[in-house]
Amino acid sequence: MKNKLLVLGTMAYDALETPFDKVDKILGGCATYIALAASQLDVEIGVISIVGEDFEAEHLTLLKNRNIDLTGVEIVAGEKTFFWSGRYHNDLNTRTTLVTELNVLTQFDPKVPENWRASDIVLLGNLNPSNQASVLDQLTTKPKLVIMDTMNFWMDNNRQELDALLPRVDVICINDEEARQLTAQNSLVKAAKLIQKSGPRYVIIKKGEHGALLFHDNQVFCAPALPLEEIFDPTGAGDSFVGGFAAYLAQLGDISFDAMKSAIIYASAMASFTVEKFGPENLIDLSQKRIQQRLAAFDQLTRFEIALG
Amino acid sequence: MKNKLLVLGTMAYDALETPFDKVDKILGGCATYIALAASQLDVEIGVISIVGEDFEAEHLTLLKNRNIDLTGVEIVAGEKTFFWSGRYHNDLNTRTTLVTELNVLTQFDPKVPENWRASDIVLLGNLNPSNQASVLDQLTTKPKLVIMDTMNFWMDNNRQELDALLPRVDVICINDEEARQLTAQNSLVKAAKLIQKSGPRYVIIKKGEHGALLFHDNQVFCAPALPLEEIFDPTGAGDSFVGGFAAYLAQLGDISFDAMKSAIIYASAMASFTVEKFGPENLIDLSQKRIQQRLAAFDQLTRFEIALG
Repeated sequence: MKNKLLVLGTMAYDALETPFDKVDKILGGCATYIALAASQLDVEIGVISIVGEDFEAEHLTLLKNRNIDLTGVEIVAGEKTFFWSGRYHNDLNTRTTLVTELNVLTQFDPKVPENWRASDIVLLGNLNPSNQASVLDQLTTKPKLVIMDTMNFWMDNNRQELDALLPRVDVICINDEEARQLTAQNSLVKAAKLIQKSGPRYVIIKKGEHGALLFHDNQVFCAPALPLEEIFDPTGAGDSFVGGFAAYLAQLGDISFDAMKSAIIYASAMASFTVEKFGPENLIDLSQKRIQQRLAAFDQLTRFEIALG
Repeated sequence: MKNKLLVLGTMAYDALETPFDKVDKILGGCATYIALAASQLDVEIGVISIVGEDFEAEHLTLLKNRNIDLTGVEIVAGEKTFFWSGRYHNDLNTRTTLVTELNVLTQFDPKVPENWRASDIVLLGNLNPSNQASVLDQLTTKPKLVIMDTMNFWMDNNRQELDALLPRVDVICINDEEARQLTAQNSLVKAAKLIQKSGPRYVIIKKGEHGALLFHDNQVFCAPALPLEEIFDPTGAGDSFVGGFAAYLAQLGDISFDAMKSAIIYASAMASFTVEKFGPENLIDLSQKRIQQRLAAFDQLTRFEIALG
């Protein structure tokens, strides 16, 4: 029987501008990227989200055809789907938000369907910490692993709810600036230690083009990012990263530190695909062959032999 | 017979200020760091440099006792040794130069001793490109490998000499900002390709706390930096890195891409020791046991298993 991965997150439409191109409306939202990345693996995926009546049938079909269970996605009549618009600057490391229309998100009260209340792994995508807590409250069985993504916006505006949620989380996945903001520590090693004290036993710190670090007790693992000639569009890279990470562990049925090392490499491969094309395009078109080739590239990128005495 | 590593570089006194401490006068200069790092390995090391009469006998003895041949170090009576003073800012990634007294460096005309004109590996430390070229001009036998370090100062002020030197170099070792400046490319992958076209077949790009990348043809290797709780003093990290790299290849007697991968890990270990204490203190105190432990830590940091189809 496949392991069950429950995902909370947004489903959205995005308008994106990069130095290379622009799109007015493309499928987006963290749950979308997470589910698409996860669907490359052999796991059962259920999504908890909310959309408006403008959410297109073809996009629901796209996800359902990949065996993504959308029972937990509420469709609200007379309302519009969450919309985000952003412009990336020349280095693609920074972006300006042009428009944020929360729309249906303002009334989001996540409901976990009956058959998803005993999930193996729960992935709380980047959303209001009270929405994230609400999902955990509805579970009837403690999951083997709870993974949380969050961002500086919630640290600024919902710090208390965020702090209350951390002890209920096993793995937190944030970027380097967020780790520094959360702990007021410049050293990522010190930041990771403080975060571990606040709850999550595993801390993943994403560093964009510099890869990612995984901390647990006194152990560290360092995963590179794939050096790419051109980053086309960074949107969704972090979401497909954490989606690949969670699904890899779910497929393997192993949540050891060693399993997490492999999962982070898989996660990095998913992120590397995402940034090569606009929005989730590349994730939708992936083949197992391309994934295997990409994993082999990560192996080549990092493998070395050195005599150890 | 041991392989011969010939090193060109400065020997200096530094005054350093970090957020943690300060020293008024400490042994410095790129040749010093390079030679100290290299002396951990089983190679013959010869240094080409220049100092003033104030250069202390105990520092010459320190280097000689580590089997570093100083025949090529000119001691100029009535002159003072190169002096540099700098202050590191809170994040330790940026620094301000407070004082630069070139002193004897202004009259430096490198002389390669007779018995060093047929060296196996030549490492041109960060110096004026005309000094670097002069060393190559004096060699009677083509070395197996020429490695060059340089910096933005020479790109700004001696670009023509630098460009003329590049085709004579096999491996260039620079940091990410310098690679971008040298090529006017933001993407490091593109920058490395352009640099390869200008001469060096191997390009090492140092990224400080984010590790280093090695490019050759269409291959890339990514070495992590060791995540440290505290960087005490970054002075000399890049020099001990390239010194460890060159000496590792010299000891191994192998200059293949695979050998360079291992050499970069060794280089990263040397850099990680250097930044843990003031100046070259930690390099001077090293034991083989600590080096082996550090190499094992790098192995732990990067090793993963993933099923490849």
